[in-house]
This record gives sequence, structure tokens and C-alpha cells, in this order.
Amino acid sequence: MISLLTDFGTRDVYAGVLHAVIGGIAPGVRVVDLTHEVAPQDVTEAAFLLDAAAPWFPPGTVHVCVVDPGVGSDRRILCARTRAATFLAPDNGLLTRVLERAPEARLNAVVDRSYFLPEVSSTFHGRDVFAPVAARLALGLDPAALGPEVRDPLRLSLPPERALASGVTAGEVVHVDRYGNLITNLRPGALGPAVRGARVGGVEVAGPVRRSYAEQDPREGGGLLLITGSTGLLEVAVRDGSAQARLGVGRGAPVEVEVSTGAPAAGAQGSARGVRS
Amino acid sequence: MISLLTDFGTRDVYAGVLHAVIGGIAPGVRVVDLTHEVAPQDVTEAAFLLDAAAPWFPPGTVHVCVVDPGVGSDRRILCARTRAATFLAPDNGLLTRVLERAPEARLNAVVDRSYFLPEVSSTFHGRDVFAPVAARLALGLDPAALGPEVRDPLRLSLPPERALASGVTAGEVVHVDRYGNLITNLRPGALGPAVRGARVGGVEVAGPVRRSYAEQDPREGGGLLLITGSTGLLEVAVRDGSAQARLGVGRGAPVEVEVSTGAPAAGAQGSARGVRS
Amino acid sequence: MISLLTDFGTRDVYAGVLHAVIGGIAPGVRVVDLTHEVAPQDVTEAAFLLDAAAPWFPPGTVHVCVVDPGVGSDRRILCARTRAATFLAPDNGLLTRVLERAPEARLNAVVDRSYFLPEVSSTFHGRDVFAPVAARLALGLDPAALGPEVRDPLRLSLPPERALASGVTAGEVVHVDRYGNLITNLRPGALGPAVRGARVGGVEVAGPVRRSYAEQDPREGGGLLLITGSTGLLEVAVRDGSAQARLGVGRGAPVEVEVSTGAPAAGAQGSARGVRS
Repeated sequence: MISLLTDFGTRDVYAGVLHAVIGGIAPGVRVVDLTHEVAPQDVTEAAFLLDAAAPWFPPGTVHVCVVDPGVGSDRRILCARTRAATFLAPDNGLLTRVLERAPEARLNAVVDRSYFLPEVSSTFHGRDVFAPVAARLALGLDPAALGPEVRDPLRLSLPPERALASGVTAGEVVHVDRYGNLITNLRPGALGPAVRGARVGGVEVAGPVRRSYAEQDPREGGGLLLITGSTGLLEVAVRDGSAQARLGVGRGAPVEVEVSTGAPAAGAQGSARGVRS
Repeated sequence: MISLLTDFGTRDVYAGVLHAVIGGIAPGVRVVDLTHEVAPQDVTEAAFLLDAAAPWFPPGTVHVCVVDPGVGSDRRILCARTRAATFLAPDNGLLTRVLERAPEARLNAVVDRSYFLPEVSSTFHGRDVFAPVAARLALGLDPAALGPEVRDPLRLSLPPERALASGVTAGEVVHVDRYGNLITNLRPGALGPAVRGARVGGVEVAGPVRRSYAEQDPREGGGLLLITGSTGLLEVAVRDGSAQARLGVGRGAPVEVEVSTGAPAAGAQGSARGVRS
Repeated sequence: MISLLTDFGTRDVYAGVLHAVIGGIAPGVRVVDLTHEVAPQDVTEAAFLLDAAAPWFPPGTVHVCVVDPGVGSDRRILCARTRAATFLAPDNGLLTRVLERAPEARLNAVVDRSYFLPEVSSTFHGRDVFAPVAARLALGLDPAALGPEVRDPLRLSLPPERALASGVTAGEVVHVDRYGNLITNLRPGALGPAVRGARVGGVEVAGPVRRSYAEQDPREGGGLLLITGSTGLLEVAVRDGSAQARLGVGRGAPVEVEVSTGAPAAGAQGSARGVRS
């Protein structure tokens, strides 16, 4: 199986052309569109989405990741093989999260032109390099054949998780999904026994961390809730609504989470106030 | 074949992850994206779209329908088998229209966790329950194995069709498509011999019901026309334009259709005026 | 392989229904979505996108093109077979660019109803005519079986390329892609030895034609650059940004390109000024 993750959009035919090139070389391989709606040139978003999706693919999947503002420059193209999958991406940090989870990964630069299309443009390596190489990897090509080993892939600096004070942890929103859920970089399990609440966009959202959206009374706290999302990360959500629209914040917004430590604390007081302070 | 109908959008990787899980279990089964652009949590829209599409799929298709604001609550998940197909959906009314057409349907609750992913989250049953169960149904699993029979599925109350007066029938807009066509719940064939016109958004749209968009003179009535759409329902359209934009109405807008009864009637007088009254 | 190019959008189920009908007739054939986001009724855009994508598909691909404002009228449906592929499209000019490149193409009208769905609506020939015919062509049906030969397909008049003065060529923007790149109808190779610059939307964009986006210093000329795009056409772009947003122009905007002729010329002076004049 091959998956495609790009910022090509679906209004143009760029994504369809990847399917065409792959289908010409490896007609029996299934190709799945992970998404083509990464914001243009947004490597950070691509890194998050790839990491969220990759664990659910069958072993041996080849993930083709093309968010590539440096196309045609001397930036490298990387092939990373982990225990679970193979990844093709420009060397611009897109693989940061995947590599963090897979210290065993071996990386090769993609340089052997005999695996590319005969003519290689300088603006559409997705078509001319990534697609034909992915098709050949899916058919069994050894990544070592693509080029020399790489030990210094470029890595994004991921948003940190910081302990602010006893029982208070600071993180940030790392993704906003279609529903307007604010996905943070914090893992509820790691935060402590009981989350009392979180502060985002000047608003207190009361804990505890809910198991489902429906658990939250829509009349309380304006329906704002904390929940462990499907990637295991803490999310700020609104029942049947959009937390992004409600709180007016997006990616990068700071989040402060307070857990019970025995003593009462300022901030989240147990019931969502759900109004801007 | 498996079809997917969700409100996941295509900016995120949720839809791609369904393909991944299905592909891991049933690699030979074709998976078709019906749409992932149902408005978030809009069960009514999903019910309409599913009903419009399902009749065109090959016999035995498994339709996976995930518009599921109650995910993680105690709402049931249903498997419905009709003569033509198998449907998986939350028990929130999404299957209302399908069940109305298929009184022979047998329903089972989806409860046997041995067909789910090993770990089931409380926020993404599409991935953890629907996808693996659909893959197994496509491979031949008997729905009866999933759980006990269900006889009381939740049903949406569908918009009624009412006779207002001799020759006048009231209905409403049940869907607005990408072209801005206003699809109503009325069937031209059932309305009577000759449709004189319809009133929507304060505008008279003249009959008769056209066979094609091109039949309507674009200079007459501002190009507004009545037509039998591809689902057999009466649509209000604008030739080479958008009736939604022109009339400023959307789903739920009332529609009054007048048919010839012999005597002349007020309202639609045979030529579209196409101006707001 | 079958490709689909339509203006159906992805919010509705129209595109999914094409997959359903094709899958019912030709379950082993791979179906690729080229795009369904052509602007409603925009035959010109469809003709450009089809021409940009078709060369990358494997030989024998059947391209299904449904941008069809005349559906249900007496407009013809055409099947064109070239050395490389087979095309199904309404006879409204959609095939103009493809036929220009393939003078050897043979065209047939699609009239034999035995290859259609049993019931043919007058509003959704994509489902009732194009999809079943495409499936049968992919399975080996001879286009000559579809109907009589056609020698007078409708053709769009494509934007011309005109020599304005010594070293100055006038063309226009023929497509704006997702990144906001302005794709023109001019081929850098045909323009002359060295492109000095281009004037678009009242702004001078300095040459030379870049090989990659990254070659352009983002601080010079506001990042505006000229580049040979992936279709071989001259594009006006902004490094890590949108030329459409920067210049405020779209399809149809005039472009004047100046090449070196030995003598200096007014206009593009070698360094992008990147400000509206």
C-alpha cells in the first residue's frame, strides 16, 4: 500500500498525476489519499498529520509526503525505513515526529536517477521523483539502492511541554481539526491523577478529561470540554460545535493545564465558566 | 466494495485512516469515498446523501456511515442488511431514509468486540469499530455475529409533503448541492398532470418541469427553472448558475408547488418572473 | 485505468456514484480521481486540467470528463481515441487542447444506448452514460461501436500568443493553481534566449526564468519570480506565497514578456521591483 500526504489540494490535477505515475509502474498496488489539503508549504502541519495517521497503516506501507517548498533546490530527498513502514519526504523536517518514535529508522538520500522518471522537472518532484520511487519501493526495491545513508536529517523543534508550577503544565495547540477541536501536545495520562482544568485563549475549560463528547452537558460551560482525542493527546472541544470558533485561537496558542495536587489552586475551579476573562 | 460517508472532511487524515484500517484487514476490497464533506454532526444531510447514492452501488456493497456526534456515549451502532446492501451507522437516524425504502431490512447491534480493533478509543469509532467491522463484513462475516437483533432503530422525522389547497402542494428544500440546485422532497410524477410553477424564497419559478437545464432560456425568469433531478426529486435551479445564490435560501426552506387543475390559479402564471416579490 | 475529471465537487455524492457504477461493471479496473473541483460549468478550466494531466497516465487510460452544462440537450457526447488514451466528454470544447496535441485522434459520437444504464436521466449523464461506457471501454469495447464517426468537434478558441514588438510577447494567464501560481500560455523555450522580465497586473516581475522557487531571494522583488512550471509553461509565482494574492489577478489576465534582443528595453530592468506601478 502507498499513502499520499501533500499540500497539492484537490482543485488541481497534481494529486491525480501521482496516482497516474504510480499506477503506470505498480498497477497492483493500492494507493490511499491521506490528505492533499495540508496548508501550502506547511511542513509542521504535515509532520503532525503523518505521525497521527502512519500507525494505522498495514506493515510495509510506503508513505509519500510532499510538502516541499525547497523543490528544485539542493535540499535532499529522504527515504526512511522503520520497523513498520517506509517514508519518502523532502529533508525539511517533515519526518521529525515519525523519526522521534522510530529511533531504529535507517535513512537514505534519494539520488539514483535510474528510479526517477526519465525527465525530471525542477518544480514537480512529486511526479518525477517521489511517485516513481514509491512505486518501486512498493514493488520491493531496497531503499539502500536509492543513495547513500543519511545520519543528519533536518528536524523541526517541536513545541515543548513545561512544568510551570506544582500541578501546572504548559503546552500548546499543535493542530486544529475539521471540527474545530484544538489538539494540544499534552498527554492526559502523563499529566497527573486528575485534570482540574485548562486555560486556552483566556478561557477556563473545566476538567475532568471527558471520555466522550456526549458526556459534557451542552448547557454547562457553553459545551466546552477536555477530552483525550483519537491520537492520545488532550483536546479542547465544544460539544456539537467548534472550539476554534468559540475560543478564537489556532495552532500555536498556549495551553495551561492544572492537575489536582491535593491543595486547591487558582484557575480551573471545577466547573467550566466558558466565558472570556 | 465498501463505501465511506462521513463528516471527517479531507483536511485531516481521519478518512485516510479508515482506508488504512480496512486495507490492512481486507486488502482486496475496493473502497470508494462517497463523501467526507457532510457538515459536522449533520445526520440529516448524511441520511439524504446515503439514500441518494446507495441504489447505484453493486449488490453486496458495505456502506460505512460515520456522522456520529454521540461517539463514545451509550448510543448503539447498527448493522442493517437489506436485499441490496449492508449498512453500518450509529443509531442516530442516519439510516432513516434507507430503512424506509427497505422494509425487509434486518438490523443488528454491533457489540462483539472481537471484530473491533484491539484497543477502542471513545472518540474515533470510525477507525476502531466501523472500519474493521466493515472490512470483515466485506469478507463475508454474517451481521448476526455482531450482536443482538434491533427492532427499534432511531428514526428522523422527514419533512412532510402536504396538500395545501386544490392543486397546491407544500414541501421543502432537503438538500442544496454544489451547483446551488435546491433539491426538494417533492416528486414531480406524484404532483399531478402539469406543474404550473413553484414559490420558493418569495420568488415564483414558472413551470413546466424542464427535462434539461439547456431547455430554459437563460434570459427568461433570470434562468430560474424547475427540473426533475437525478434522484427523481423536484429541483429548483438556475441555468449556468446557482439557485441558492439567486434565491438566498437553503435547506429547510418551504416550497409550494402548483399544478394545473383546469381552473387558473394565483401564483405561478406560466412565465417565470424570477424577481423577489 | 479510468480517470475522472468533473465539476461535481466532493460535498455531494455524484463523484462517488460514478465510482459505484464503474465498479459494478468493471470491478477490476482502477479508478483515479483527477479532480472534481473544476468550477461549475467551467469547460475552459476542464480543458486545461485534462491536458495537463493526461500525458502522465499509462497507455490505454480512459479519461472521463464531465463538465456538461448542456446535459440533456441535443449536444453530442464524444469518444476520442488517440495513440495514448481514450477520452469521453461532452462536445462542448472540453477536448480542444487534447485534440490539438493528437491530430491522429478518431472521434465517435456516443449514441448506442445498449452501453448506457437501462434508464437514462436527462440531468446526470455522468452516471447514466459516461460511467457505464467508460467501464466498457476499459474492458475492451471498440469506440467505433458507440456511434458514427465525428469530424467536427466543437473547439474552444484558445488564448493567442502575440508578438507585440521586437522582443516582447503577449499572452495571458490560463490557470491559477492552489498555490496561487499564475500559469500562462507562454513557453519559455519558445520565447527567446533570455527572458528579461514580465508585466502582469501592472507589476514588473524580473527575469531570468528561475529553475526553482528557492532560487529566488525572498527579500528581492517581494519574492516574485518567473519559473517554468511542471507543464512546461511560464508561471508567475511568489516564493512561499501566492502570486494571485500578491498581484490581484486571475485567469485571463494579460501577460507581457520581454526577452533580451541585444538592445536594452524599457520595462523589466533585471531586478524585480515587485511593486504596483
